[in-house]
Amino acid sequence: MSSMNIPQSSLARVIIIGGGFGGIALAKKLANQDIQVVLLDKHNYHNFQPLLYQVSTGGLEPDSIAYPIRKVLQGYPNFYFRLAEVVEVIASEKKVMTNIGDIRYDYLVVATGSETNFFGNKNIENLGMAMKTIPQSLNLRSLILENFEQALLTDDLHERDALMNFVIVGGGPTGVELAGALAEIKKGILPKDYPDLDTRRAQINLVQGSGRILPAMSKIASEKAERFLEKLGVNVWKNIRVTDYDGNRVTTNTDTEFEAATLVWAAGVKAVTLKGLDAKELLARGNRLQVNEFNQVVGHSNIFAIGDVAQMQTESHPNGHPMMAQPAIQQGHNLGLNLIRLLENKPLRPFEYKDKGSMATVGRNKAVVDLKRFKFQGVFAWFVWMFVHLYFLIGFRNRVVVFINWVYNYIRFDREARLIIRPFKKNR
Amino acid sequence: MSSMNIPQSSLARVIIIGGGFGGIALAKKLANQDIQVVLLDKHNYHNFQPLLYQVSTGGLEPDSIAYPIRKVLQGYPNFYFRLAEVVEVIASEKKVMTNIGDIRYDYLVVATGSETNFFGNKNIENLGMAMKTIPQSLNLRSLILENFEQALLTDDLHERDALMNFVIVGGGPTGVELAGALAEIKKGILPKDYPDLDTRRAQINLVQGSGRILPAMSKIASEKAERFLEKLGVNVWKNIRVTDYDGNRVTTNTDTEFEAATLVWAAGVKAVTLKGLDAKELLARGNRLQVNEFNQVVGHSNIFAIGDVAQMQTESHPNGHPMMAQPAIQQGHNLGLNLIRLLENKPLRPFEYKDKGSMATVGRNKAVVDLKRFKFQGVFAWFVWMFVHLYFLIGFRNRVVVFINWVYNYIRFDREARLIIRPFKKNR
Repeated sequence: MSSMNIPQSSLARVIIIGGGFGGIALAKKLANQDIQVVLLDKHNYHNFQPLLYQVSTGGLEPDSIAYPIRKVLQGYPNFYFRLAEVVEVIASEKKVMTNIGDIRYDYLVVATGSETNFFGNKNIENLGMAMKTIPQSLNLRSLILENFEQALLTDDLHERDALMNFVIVGGGPTGVELAGALAEIKKGILPKDYPDLDTRRAQINLVQGSGRILPAMSKIASEKAERFLEKLGVNVWKNIRVTDYDGNRVTTNTDTEFEAATLVWAAGVKAVTLKGLDAKELLARGNRLQVNEFNQVVGHSNIFAIGDVAQMQTESHPNGHPMMAQPAIQQGHNLGLNLIRLLENKPLRPFEYKDKGSMATVGRNKAVVDLKRFKFQGVFAWFVWMFVHLYFLIGFRNRVVVFINWVYNYIRFDREARLIIRPFKKNR
Repeated sequence: MSSMNIPQSSLARVIIIGGGFGGIALAKKLANQDIQVVLLDKHNYHNFQPLLYQVSTGGLEPDSIAYPIRKVLQGYPNFYFRLAEVVEVIASEKKVMTNIGDIRYDYLVVATGSETNFFGNKNIENLGMAMKTIPQSLNLRSLILENFEQALLTDDLHERDALMNFVIVGGGPTGVELAGALAEIKKGILPKDYPDLDTRRAQINLVQGSGRILPAMSKIASEKAERFLEKLGVNVWKNIRVTDYDGNRVTTNTDTEFEAATLVWAAGVKAVTLKGLDAKELLARGNRLQVNEFNQVVGHSNIFAIGDVAQMQTESHPNGHPMMAQPAIQQGHNLGLNLIRLLENKPLRPFEYKDKGSMATVGRNKAVVDLKRFKFQGVFAWFVWMFVHLYFLIGFRNRVVVFINWVYNYIRFDREARLIIRPFKKNR
């Protein structure tokens, strides 16, 4: 199986590593071209990361935010998907080595995205929870529910409080959205589910290293989001950096400490590097691959990188574009057009980022939206947030199911996927 | 935590072990009574087993057929749910020992249901797949998809055929429904998802030990179901018993052998016994607890058993009632009324089973229904099957989401939950 059973043809072969927002956007652009496209991913599905926090908090079913990659590519001629983990890229031989065999490319596109960055803290990595994949989100969902079941059983008030104490590290959209959702669960669901437990003692702490939450958004968005969180009962801690965690005690760079059975680490991401493309001179901050305005990796005319894994230094974005869906999608589109131009011997067009704004939701009727010209917060922002997320979710069925869940959760103040399908603690 | 933090009160305490159809039906009947009810289950959700095969085949999301037990009991006074595994029942002390502590009862109800019965065959237990729980169904879903991904990669035709060969052992409703669903996937999805694989070579074999499939249903239902399956391309093997499996080769009591990477064992169930209530003289065939007409366990006036775990010998059902949802629900209802009568010092009323019929679905527009007076098959039966399953599914949101999925799958000939969220082979 040296070639993964992918036919050699006279067509140029583009290998895309990663079926996230960037990889899928690129693949779609290459449909119906005289190009052989091979998409490699270690999962057989595309995962809509912006809604993972709703899976963790029982608001959505995991399958609603996943979509089979093969279905995306259905009907495209010359397309091949392979479920594979890339072991190494050997650029000198134009070859990708994977766990299912090796394959040569004419053009390689790295779209591997990003993963949680624990900044080398092994304790936090081992004892804290991350929320970048569906299994991770399901583990967090299980842990939250298991903690409340356990809190019921102990007579030790200290232990009980720790089991109901949540420390979320990182005040970006993920941290803010998770904190808001947990606060709503505390208010709407816990008292009904656990009438024999004093769930008012549950604490949700959001810890942010810098002086404001949602630092990538406007000041007004940060302020409003903080006010929304406080209204929901979240304790927002600013200018505090979490330094360590022993499974119960959370230490910080200040005197503040927390005793919490759950620490969620949402304080940083780093690009997913590939062996063979991880030389120091290729990498920028957060392990991102340095690319030029055509998304070409420095020094490699036939290797490209898009999305979170790519850092394109521009005047407006000296540290690269934000690690979000939009830049990935737009770079995927542009690279698709460029690959077609390349094969037609036409000059490449530089990537231009169209900032469509950013947004975050805190809770029901509470969201913040920054557009280029307008910034708004509250109910309307919340509707915009929902509409945009439904729009970018892949798959008609997913959209309908997510919409139904949202309507149900809104009307009933409920989240019915509070299920421990696979216990987390037991498997730890 | 000797008492699981459940208050001692002057009320009589009923402990229900198991939140399946029987346990939930009973709990509902005891709401708003002067009875303390403690429901123990090792999962925090009720699981709608009749639809597990749709989870395995990507037609439904797992969370749609699960429902949080705490939500069922919300608002009932004097109700306590505990996530616990029962270790032993000590009848002489009216005590249940669990992994979270011990608790005394005035009345104990065993509603532990049933589990897969491999009849002692360790090879089949270790290498075959069962489908009685949600994690098991998700494992099967992953395995099916992983096998096709692997089939793509091999040049060994023998190996490839084995990866696409499914042997389902047991011609009851579970086996029939799973075989039908796989056949529809073969026809409608595989050719589109795997254009580079000759998926026509995929084989679905249903192996039944006796002379007809669906032996508990009418002859006409069996015959029609078999014809439906054959129309869908399923190979139905009758009067063959599978005797062993080595992970690839399936041997039988005849010359027939199969080479298959997937064997699903749906050929038998046995009651889930509890230590302390597993004395030989208590048990009937399949480890079921012998109960009298009031569901009282032989020799124990304050211990009851309902549903799959109970065998009530009656004239019409000398081997006990069928191990299905209906007898469990009806026994739960009757026992609820009887417990109330017991506490009012009124005489108990014997259980009378109202056979509401049985049904099985084979595929789109293809189902068989046996009612007392009418037996019918085909499109109308299929609609009845869907309606009944939606009706008995717990939870409004679940019903809506399942309904939406069915409509979508029907119109689009699709099943979008074909996701390998947690790979099965890797964890093996």
